[in-house]
This record gives sequence, structure tokens and C-alpha cells, in this order.
Amino acid sequence: MKFMDEFALIRTLLAPLARDFPGSLNLRDDAALLRAPEGCELVVTKDAMCAGVHFFPQDDAGLIAKKLLRVNLSDLAAKGAAPLCYFMALMLPRDTDNGWYARFAEGLRDDQAHYGIHLAGGDTTATPGLLALSLTAVGSVKQGAALLRSGARAGDRIYVSGTLGDAALGLAVLQETLNVSPLHSLWLKERYYLPQPRMALGAKLHGIAHACMDVSDGLVQDLGHICTASGVGAVIHRHRLPLSEAALSVLQENEAWWHAISSGGDDYELLFTVPHNMEDELQALAQQLLLPLTCIGDIVPGSDVQLLDEHGQDATPAQGGYRHF
Amino acid sequence: MKFMDEFALIRTLLAPLARDFPGSLNLRDDAALLRAPEGCELVVTKDAMCAGVHFFPQDDAGLIAKKLLRVNLSDLAAKGAAPLCYFMALMLPRDTDNGWYARFAEGLRDDQAHYGIHLAGGDTTATPGLLALSLTAVGSVKQGAALLRSGARAGDRIYVSGTLGDAALGLAVLQETLNVSPLHSLWLKERYYLPQPRMALGAKLHGIAHACMDVSDGLVQDLGHICTASGVGAVIHRHRLPLSEAALSVLQENEAWWHAISSGGDDYELLFTVPHNMEDELQALAQQLLLPLTCIGDIVPGSDVQLLDEHGQDATPAQGGYRHF
Repeated sequence: MKFMDEFALIRTLLAPLARDFPGSLNLRDDAALLRAPEGCELVVTKDAMCAGVHFFPQDDAGLIAKKLLRVNLSDLAAKGAAPLCYFMALMLPRDTDNGWYARFAEGLRDDQAHYGIHLAGGDTTATPGLLALSLTAVGSVKQGAALLRSGARAGDRIYVSGTLGDAALGLAVLQETLNVSPLHSLWLKERYYLPQPRMALGAKLHGIAHACMDVSDGLVQDLGHICTASGVGAVIHRHRLPLSEAALSVLQENEAWWHAISSGGDDYELLFTVPHNMEDELQALAQQLLLPLTCIGDIVPGSDVQLLDEHGQDATPAQGGYRHF
Repeated sequence: MKFMDEFALIRTLLAPLARDFPGSLNLRDDAALLRAPEGCELVVTKDAMCAGVHFFPQDDAGLIAKKLLRVNLSDLAAKGAAPLCYFMALMLPRDTDNGWYARFAEGLRDDQAHYGIHLAGGDTTATPGLLALSLTAVGSVKQGAALLRSGARAGDRIYVSGTLGDAALGLAVLQETLNVSPLHSLWLKERYYLPQPRMALGAKLHGIAHACMDVSDGLVQDLGHICTASGVGAVIHRHRLPLSEAALSVLQENEAWWHAISSGGDDYELLFTVPHNMEDELQALAQQLLLPLTCIGDIVPGSDVQLLDEHGQDATPAQGGYRHF
């Protein structure tokens, strides 16, 4: 099988992804040109993914592409930003075949259309190592309207979107350390492979939420980041965490899986704090978006995150999330 | 030896690099905030580097950091942009030690101060593979003033800054396929490890140059990119290429090294085209910047790049530059 060269890859598979973004200069220049929409500032985020850490080397290229884009979109959602464009570095093992490239580009094309974002530039290089990917996503937000981690105040209620822990359980299913029914297996694996960045929710939280981030490395650790940035503490309740039917069923079999749910990564739900007087408005938003928004605890004075079980006993995990090293 | 964890690395070594850029939010948020200076648009570029391709795994971490930043700065220079900030993804083998981190951060700190650029965000992850780095640099340029690859016209003179081929010869010295005197060895290796992004030149070329890019993958191939983007051809003369004393001495020993000089990568000099009536102004600029600017040929109608030797014979290499795959 003939392998595509670097320039053919860019011309035939990547340039079409950049066609509708004039500042990309059709990927024919050293750099891209970028202007913020009138009255807006830009929000920029960068997340990298490596084979053997963030995905399995044999995973479908289309799924890898979508996850790469979505984990970055999730960061834009957490700031309340609308997607604009992205820059991508592909570090590719030399034996990568044409079919892989094609499926990867197709995954990007589908998600670009769905989320309204465009490729604007990047770099492709060979590597003697494992596949590694880096993506820088750019969004826009009205000047001064970005949601930050640093705005939480004692007395705020802590909310989370969707359900928690499914992705960590999905990973356990893939690693064959967890057995579930075929139906639950599909649900959990989909939650691991295809996170749903909460763009519509993030865009509506300005004026409602005091602080916001996405849960990517584990609930307890990530809530700790909001607390550190805001100079506050938090108390959350395990029995209030929103769980899917699949996760509930796993816990019914073995309570030890609580750990994966409170500290596992890859959820990409939004975690945010709101003052009491905004809770009605928030529930109206949940109805409008058809997305569960669940109160899991309270911001308190202090600096620690405390997770309580259903008896009010401390159940805070020693390490509340994923650390790379 | 105790290894630094991910958060300690960010807090102690990376956050200080972001302190003077308010939009970085001190690296404590999911994303950074960015506004273009009044009347300017943003220029964004992304270059990745992998161990075993762009540098030797045992290379000094400070030199790797500087090269990573400089190859991206060179792209900004090629667009005539002033540096603003950068985003960096570090994919680190788990056995990376604290000394490596410290030297890497020190390299960045030195070059940040020299080039006036700031860290604004990024990602650090572990990898079971080899060290891989990706950097997205952001610069600003007056609206409409960016130098593009696409503006070359038949009749333009083709210019290049500095000297060509030193980095490719430096790499050959490091790979021990080329032997030179100790003095030349140092010069060539420095040119390979520490490219000089031509920021001051790029900033002055607006209104003078029709098209511009940096020479990163080999002169003939890169000039081909200008020709493709502009719909023109080019004729350049080997004996007019600006060469260092070290490169001249290598050629005197063995003419076969011409290939490395015309097709080798890593020069990071600016390659640009100017109309005849701007040549005096250009030479004044060379005097002002104390930087040689050398005419190496002409833009002609057509689509090919032709390299002629001193007898007017075709000496165009079959493959005019580096391809990753």
C-alpha cells in the first residue's frame, strides 16, 4: 500500500477542513490570520493527547479525532465561548496508513460541521515514537463575559451537568477490569470515546454562574482547582452526584467503584457555582436545554474539598483525580 | 531523586513564565483570554518537535526549549508580526527528572525576555513514548499588513537573509558524517541548535516585499511553496547563495555538500521577493540591521523552481527539501 506523503495529506485531507475559514490561507502559508468578532475577546485552550495515555493505539482514527476536538471544545464551553477555529499538530508514526488519515479527517469533518469550528493551521511531523496529537482551539466571548474558575464565593451552590463517572467506568470496561451488560457497556464506552462538550450550557451561564470549569481529570481534584483559584472550600455529597442507570447498576454490584466515579477523568461535564437566587433560572435553563443540572453541594469558607457519604461521613479520596506524573 | 508532579511543575516552573501576561490567568484556568492590540490582527502559527526527528533525545533541555520557541517565532517573523504570547503542550516521558524541567524552563525564560513573548497556556501530559513538544505562537500585525507567501510576481528579485545551509551542515557534524575544524564545528552546531528568528527584518518588510516565508525545510522546496501560492516560477543561482566561511570551507573539500546547502532544513532565514524599485531601500535596511540580504535569483513566469550552477547548468535537486513522510 502506498503511503500518502506529508504534502498530499495536507492538500487532500486537511485543506478541505480549512476552506471555510479565510484566515487559514488554505493552509498554504506559515501562519493563519485571526480577528476577534466585534466586541469580543478570544479564548484559547490547548489539550494534547498521546497514544497509551489518552487513547488506545488501536482505537478508530475517527473517534480519536473527535475526542481531540471535543476535549478542547469542552474547555471553550467552560469559559462560555463560541467555537471559532483550531490549530492542530499531528505527530505520526511513519507506518500510519492512508485509511487511518482518511478516517481521522472524516471524524474532524463531522465534528466541525456539528460544532461550527474550522481548521486554521498546524503542523504534521513524523515521529519514531507513538502517535501524539496537540490541538489549540480558539473561541470568542463578549468582552468581560468569560466564565472563570476564580469567581466562586462562600454560600454558592455547586452544580454539575449531565452524569458523572460514566467515562471512567467505560475505560474500566475497555480495560476489562469491569463487566457490565452489553447495553451498559455501549453506553459507558460511548461516554468515554465521545464526550459531549456542553457548548449551549456554557454560552448561557454568563450572569448566572460565579465560577465554571469542565470536569476532565476527576470531580474532587477539579473542584479543588475552583477552590484554589477562588480562595474557598467546598462540601459535596456523594449521594447527590448525578449517575446514569449504568453507573448505578455498577455501584449496586460493588461500592468500590465510587472511587472511579468521584475521581475518574474524561467526564467533560461542566462544574459551576451559582448564588442561591439564581437557582430557579438555572432549572429553567435545564428544561430549555433538556440537560440535567444537579446541585451536589456548597461552597464554604476554607480551602479544602470534602466529599461526604450518605451518612455524613468523610469519603474524600486521598487523590481526587488523574495526575500524569 | 524525587520527581516533580504535574501541578508542581506548572506552579513552580511554568506559572512564572506566564506572570506578565494577564490573559494567561496565571495558568490557573481552562483557557487564556486574548485581545489583539488596537488596529491589529493576530497571526497564529504552530510547530511541533519530536525527539529523534527535530532534536536528539540527549540534547540539553534549555536548547530544546529555545529551538521550540524560535522555530515558531521565525514563522511570526515571516509574516511581519510582533510576538505576543504562546501556548505549549509538553508530552513528557515519565522518567523526566527535575533538572531537565528546570533547564527547559530556564531556556524559555531567557528567550521570552529576549523576544518579548509570554507563556499564556498549554497542557502537560505524560507519554509512554518519546518526548514530544508542540507550540502555538501568537503575534500581532497591523490589519492587512501581514506578509504572505502568495504575493510574488514575475520580475521580482528573490532575496534571502543571513547565510544558508549552516544548520544542515551542523546536523551532519552532530551525526558525525562531516568533519570540520573545532571552530567551524561550534559555528555550525550553534546554527543548528539556536536559529535566529529574523523578527526585526520581518517587521520592516511590509511595503517592500511582495511575498515572504522562512526557510525551514530546505531552500528549493520552500521557494517552491512561494511559487505555488503565487502562481509563478523561480530561477536561482547556486553561486549566489550566501554562505558562511564554515560552509565555504566544507564545499572546498567536497562539492557533494551542495545538496545539504540547497535542500537541508533548519536555516530559519527569511526568503522573500521584492520588486526592482525596492532594492535600494532593501540594502539600506541591511545596513541598518547589520544583516546580509542577498539576491539569489528572479521570479519568472511558470511554476517550477530551477537552481542553476556557476556554468548555467541545471543543478536542481530531485527532492528540494525535508519531508516527514
